[in-house]
Amino acid sequence: MAAAIVEQAFSDSDINALLFFSILVFAQQVGFASLEVGNVRAKNARNILLKNLIDKLACGVCYWAVGFAFAYGSGAKTGGFIGHSDFFLSTFTRETATLWFFSWVFLLTATTIVSGCIAERAQFEAYLAYTPLMSVLVYPLVVHWTWEGWLTTFAPHCRYLDFAGGSTVHLLGGTAGFVAAWLIGPRIGRFDGDDVKPIVGHNVESMTVGTLFLWFGWYGFNISPAYLRGDFRTTVAARAAVNTTLAGCAGSLTSILVVWWQTSQWDLRICCNGVLAGMVSITGLCPHVEPWAAFTMGTIAGFVYLALSKLLTRLGVDDPLDASAVHAGCSLVGLIGLGVFAKPEFVQQHRTGDPRICGGFLYTSRGGEQLGVQILGVLVIMAFTGASSFVLFYTLKHFGRLRVDQATEIAGIDNIDHGGPAYPDFVILSHE
Amino acid sequence: MAAAIVEQAFSDSDINALLFFSILVFAQQVGFASLEVGNVRAKNARNILLKNLIDKLACGVCYWAVGFAFAYGSGAKTGGFIGHSDFFLSTFTRETATLWFFSWVFLLTATTIVSGCIAERAQFEAYLAYTPLMSVLVYPLVVHWTWEGWLTTFAPHCRYLDFAGGSTVHLLGGTAGFVAAWLIGPRIGRFDGDDVKPIVGHNVESMTVGTLFLWFGWYGFNISPAYLRGDFRTTVAARAAVNTTLAGCAGSLTSILVVWWQTSQWDLRICCNGVLAGMVSITGLCPHVEPWAAFTMGTIAGFVYLALSKLLTRLGVDDPLDASAVHAGCSLVGLIGLGVFAKPEFVQQHRTGDPRICGGFLYTSRGGEQLGVQILGVLVIMAFTGASSFVLFYTLKHFGRLRVDQATEIAGIDNIDHGGPAYPDFVILSHE
Amino acid sequence: MAAAIVEQAFSDSDINALLFFSILVFAQQVGFASLEVGNVRAKNARNILLKNLIDKLACGVCYWAVGFAFAYGSGAKTGGFIGHSDFFLSTFTRETATLWFFSWVFLLTATTIVSGCIAERAQFEAYLAYTPLMSVLVYPLVVHWTWEGWLTTFAPHCRYLDFAGGSTVHLLGGTAGFVAAWLIGPRIGRFDGDDVKPIVGHNVESMTVGTLFLWFGWYGFNISPAYLRGDFRTTVAARAAVNTTLAGCAGSLTSILVVWWQTSQWDLRICCNGVLAGMVSITGLCPHVEPWAAFTMGTIAGFVYLALSKLLTRLGVDDPLDASAVHAGCSLVGLIGLGVFAKPEFVQQHRTGDPRICGGFLYTSRGGEQLGVQILGVLVIMAFTGASSFVLFYTLKHFGRLRVDQATEIAGIDNIDHGGPAYPDFVILSHE
Repeated sequence: MAAAIVEQAFSDSDINALLFFSILVFAQQVGFASLEVGNVRAKNARNILLKNLIDKLACGVCYWAVGFAFAYGSGAKTGGFIGHSDFFLSTFTRETATLWFFSWVFLLTATTIVSGCIAERAQFEAYLAYTPLMSVLVYPLVVHWTWEGWLTTFAPHCRYLDFAGGSTVHLLGGTAGFVAAWLIGPRIGRFDGDDVKPIVGHNVESMTVGTLFLWFGWYGFNISPAYLRGDFRTTVAARAAVNTTLAGCAGSLTSILVVWWQTSQWDLRICCNGVLAGMVSITGLCPHVEPWAAFTMGTIAGFVYLALSKLLTRLGVDDPLDASAVHAGCSLVGLIGLGVFAKPEFVQQHRTGDPRICGGFLYTSRGGEQLGVQILGVLVIMAFTGASSFVLFYTLKHFGRLRVDQATEIAGIDNIDHGGPAYPDFVILSHE
Repeated sequence: MAAAIVEQAFSDSDINALLFFSILVFAQQVGFASLEVGNVRAKNARNILLKNLIDKLACGVCYWAVGFAFAYGSGAKTGGFIGHSDFFLSTFTRETATLWFFSWVFLLTATTIVSGCIAERAQFEAYLAYTPLMSVLVYPLVVHWTWEGWLTTFAPHCRYLDFAGGSTVHLLGGTAGFVAAWLIGPRIGRFDGDDVKPIVGHNVESMTVGTLFLWFGWYGFNISPAYLRGDFRTTVAARAAVNTTLAGCAGSLTSILVVWWQTSQWDLRICCNGVLAGMVSITGLCPHVEPWAAFTMGTIAGFVYLALSKLLTRLGVDDPLDASAVHAGCSLVGLIGLGVFAKPEFVQQHRTGDPRICGGFLYTSRGGEQLGVQILGVLVIMAFTGASSFVLFYTLKHFGRLRVDQATEIAGIDNIDHGGPAYPDFVILSHE
Repeated sequence: MAAAIVEQAFSDSDINALLFFSILVFAQQVGFASLEVGNVRAKNARNILLKNLIDKLACGVCYWAVGFAFAYGSGAKTGGFIGHSDFFLSTFTRETATLWFFSWVFLLTATTIVSGCIAERAQFEAYLAYTPLMSVLVYPLVVHWTWEGWLTTFAPHCRYLDFAGGSTVHLLGGTAGFVAAWLIGPRIGRFDGDDVKPIVGHNVESMTVGTLFLWFGWYGFNISPAYLRGDFRTTVAARAAVNTTLAGCAGSLTSILVVWWQTSQWDLRICCNGVLAGMVSITGLCPHVEPWAAFTMGTIAGFVYLALSKLLTRLGVDDPLDASAVHAGCSLVGLIGLGVFAKPEFVQQHRTGDPRICGGFLYTSRGGEQLGVQILGVLVIMAFTGASSFVLFYTLKHFGRLRVDQATEIAGIDNIDHGGPAYPDFVILSHE
């Protein structure tokens, strides 16, 4: 027997919308592949692209066999800690099939984030170990807690809220990526004593088109959950579309203006990451707030992204795409901001009839409790994700399976492990 | 209180379709970015990509704050000249949110067109001035006149017709782009006395994939308005899909065959632009005509595009992507062709119950009036757009804020204003 | 009068779904263009891109004028051999428009496959001859036989089954491509006596992003037919989404692991083609089987792809993208596998009320007949497609219209026929 969520009545129109919008979420995979390859050097292009593909393959198999059962299987016997039914999609109905597909595309996003953080120096095999862990254990448990399990019931009056995966995708992916980037160490040449040397990606077009593609797919990401429940599904969907747009615009404008103020350069990479920062920030609460609040979240996220990026550099953590700053850091803006800005009436449109809806303290006297629940929720998710990632990556490191050797890193992983250069017809500069 | 259009009853299915197809329109932004970057030289790649991103950011904020209110706010007090309610989306319902999102993605397309016309020599700041003008004033007013205001009521029996933005997007964007390209002057090396030297873009793959992407998104563009009104929404949508396809095919085949006839070369760039020419031509009337008429419009547009492109070159206007020929020139084919080919019965399926529907003179004795209304409409829109663009770009030019200096243009804008070359791992030829 | 299929009652929701998902199928054209250009050398980039565009243009016109009438026109007077009504979409209703658009995007895919097989040495004019043949004759007849005509009625109890175009697109395209690749001969330098020299494509990013794009569009491909008929449309759609995913993952994992086992390299190109192999295999029967069977089909397809690719190389057939192995070879896995794995209950959900549904022999005593029907069906389709392609390509070859001359092939087709190199700002290596 599957989770409660698939036992409600879905209309044909809901199933159609869930399928459509989930496919748009899959389009984000095109975006991530483009963005990531554009941000690495030409000598590691094959490597990062292959990681992006393997992500989908391994998640497909593992999430079908085990992960979905842990995430959305009935968790009755474990008190909401872990699901334990429907391994291998054994109940293959319209509802389980749709929910599997819907949650699989979100899982892909969470997993892909990590590949950016350890780009240009990780062993391919490390990624082969990481992806199954993510799809079998980390993501399913966080999903189960967030939307089905104990995080929805532990506080007296309020449930933990996350609309579209601020926690289960972005906070999770960003946290795991941070741990991985920290343990694997910086790329050769990134830090030279106190000197910080930028390592520039090889294709800005790819980076930018990838970002626009992520934007495109984000509408799927932030709209699709509207069709899972509630009496006002299309209202929720339309609001999500607008607020996602405004937050992304605000995040990017803030970032690029701050950097322009500091350096007099209009920085394309900052502009791209700023879009992601703003959109990550609104993911957890997109249809729950007024447009001005979405704009505010995005603006804050623009600053948070820049500050965290600078902090990571100062700590000597080399995250080639700033993915942990963008995904973990900015998701917190929205997940905690929910305790301030979420309008109870809007939340009710999505969770109609749920007695455990409070909302932000701008609107309700129970906002304090909501804020507390949100903070506790993100702490738990960060702790669990961080700890399990630490165990895995530390073990890999210990056994010499995390990082490629120095010669491979300098020559480029493509040349050693993937059969040759990515652009054999072009003359490539050797930077090292 | 918002415009009349949001007061009718939308079904859930309509909202879903509007959201989904609007997101496809957003996909055109991926297409424009690819197409434009492919058509410029490698040394200006960052610059054009950044312009493409900033377009979305500035439009997002300005259209939320002001533009939407001018376009779709109630215009009762101004006699259909300008809307004056719902600034900052103050009425945040399902209908206003959907309409905002829908019209915002169309605005993006209009604005982006201009960036192509002034590529490779405009100051980034000029674009920062232009985008707000477009999203706050030009686009909102043209939208208000075309779909809500005085252009629908001034003639005795016929309203001005534009189905999907032939006027509000393509004519507007192409006209503004022409004025800008004319005022800014040609790129260094483009015209040398009587000699015309082609300046070839740096990436045909990007250009072609971008064109295919625009094609993909055009189905969103030309189908989505079907769900705004009428008793036969899906009929209108299906017809729009077919006619868009046929016009695009006819436009491209015509262009490529003419050029092959003249030069014995199969020209990829002409083929790409021909697709756009055909699709632009049918945008204003896609579901209002029989397939053979769509094919005819596209064929005419193929010739018009080539003729205007040649004319602009002869006039010394340097439009790197031929965007003004394609978007302004070919939109006229359809907007005026409406007065000939539009089938009243088909128009009624979209504007059910509207007493002011005439149609083309092939089908109705009031076709002459329709034709007159169409011609007057496009003249007004061109005059208004051209004049406001002229004032802006002339002012920028006067204060030295329109064009980069000669050294920057020769070195490439990327190297001076955007932190360095776009493809740092590749060996780039210096053409100048 | 059009085919029986358009006379049933479609709901608005069905039409919307057919339009949405058909547009996603069109997105595969972006994928094919990227994948194919990435797999050829830089010197032939314009050529392959132009072929990809022309495909759409010629198919658009030919399928509108004639092809659709042959495919879906009433075939009453010919006993199900060929349709003979609705030339030029003369009945332009909601249903015919939707069906035209739906079947046109599938035709595009079938046609595009061939351009990969003869890449880097075919005359552009050969493709101009081939595309009309495909869209006017080969595809329409196979479609008519498969879904409307005699293949559905010739056996005592079972109809030939193909859900989403395993036969009409992949088997057809792959077979025609094989014949063309065989007749045109290998590229210069590919085979040197017994030596096989790999010719590596110029852009792996393009190849990989193209593959992801095909994956994205495949959801349209494999889901859209669900809305054509049956009492359980959304159930069929949801199952198709899941099984498509699992088969693609299985195919790719199998291929990449086998090659890694053999060569110790993680091969990105194999990984990409493996995704396609798995997805091709499930196309004919995606919603008709349990997930484990989809996984099994994909796994088998991974092996079949590698084996056929090796076989073709041994036979001296040079198929630059392995498109015939992937599309013809792997489609057989599913089309024949249907006779084993198809669950009658699942098939009935799509073909509700059809008395001629049997299913695979794992589930029914009539599985043997189903298996026989499937085998006969694929043989007929291969024979017809192979023979008509042979006649065409042999004739072209005979008159010296199939292959470019040696000088052009060595210089690159772009430089001779298409006005110059594809990447004029980059320094390109000359391999030959």
